[in-house]
Formats: sequence, structure tokens, C-alpha cells
Amino acid sequence: MMVIISYDVSTASTGGTKRLRQVAKACEAHAQRVQNSVFEADLDYSAFLKLKAELVRIIDEKTDSLRFYYLGNHWKRRVEHIGAKKGYDPEGPIII
Amino acid sequence: MMVIISYDVSTASTGGTKRLRQVAKACEAHAQRVQNSVFEADLDYSAFLKLKAELVRIIDEKTDSLRFYYLGNHWKRRVEHIGAKKGYDPEGPIII
Repeated sequence: MMVIISYDVSTASTGGTKRLRQVAKACEAHAQRVQNSVFEADLDYSAFLKLKAELVRIIDEKTDSLRFYYLGNHWKRRVEHIGAKKGYDPEGPIII
Repeated sequence: MMVIISYDVSTASTGGTKRLRQVAKACEAHAQRVQNSVFEADLDYSAFLKLKAELVRIIDEKTDSLRFYYLGNHWKRRVEHIGAKKGYDPEGPIII
């Protein structure tokens, strides 16, 4: 299933920069970055729940926020890209 | 219907800062900002097409990118927010 992960980490609050780095790192390990703080995670449900739990552990819920948009399994018809940097197709051929 | 609009405008290219301002302004007029460059647009289809055409006109497709995630009409079950700044409910009560 595809989940769009968008986050907003307050770097003004103490430890904010470190949390921002950790959130980005956790997302990069499991998802494709499409914008600065927007990732596309094409994962099975249990893998997604693990990532989500990790992100919730990292952020400070008083100052930071996470937003998840659940696109489901038939997500390709729900995503449209216009312009540069098309981004990879998570289910496309792997070019080595 | 709800569409998530995410954009990436190259401010390094000429006119980039102006395009970024124009894209943000166009989105702010019709949608709710949830992240720096992420908006939630709860619009009917024709209003959305107008906004989309405006955004496509503004960007430079060689350097900038727009991404649209179509969540459809029953979108509330597809969006999950964790943490600060819940953001308004586009169909919720207007607090005056």
C-alpha cells in the first residue's frame, strides 16, 4: 500500500535539528523522498506500522507534526506528477 | 474532493523565488497549507482544474515540479495527523 508521509519538525525547539535529521533518516530508509519533507512509502501494512511507530517515537508531539495520507493499494491512479524530477517508480524496473 | 498538492520550485533558477511566491499564493487562495510546500485542496473538480491550470502556468517544468495526490470524496479516513498544529477541518464549523 502507498502512504504519503509529510512532516513538520520545529527546529526552533531544543533538539529540533536532531529530530529533523532522525525523521528524515527513518523515512529515507523505507520510502522515496519526493519533496523536502514529503515521502512516498510503498510498504506492506506491518512495515508501515513499524516506520510510523519509529517516527512517533522521534518527534515531539507538542511542537512537531506528522501527516499520513493513505492512498491504498491502487495508488498509481491517485498520483500525478508534472515537471522536473519525475522520481522513481517504486514498482518499476531497478536500473543497475 | 480532496487533493494534496505538493510542489518543489527551484529558487536557484532565474525567476525561481517569484514563481515560488506565486505558487504559494495561488494555493493559499484555494487550499489549506499543512506543511511548507504541502496544501490540502478540498474543491469541486472544476475549481480544482482551474487551480491546477494556474499552477502549471506558473512553474517552469524544466526545473520545478508539482505533485497531486487524489484522495477522492471520502478522504477523511485517508488522512491521519499526529502532533502539533492539527490544522482546520475544511468541513468543520467556522469559528468567528
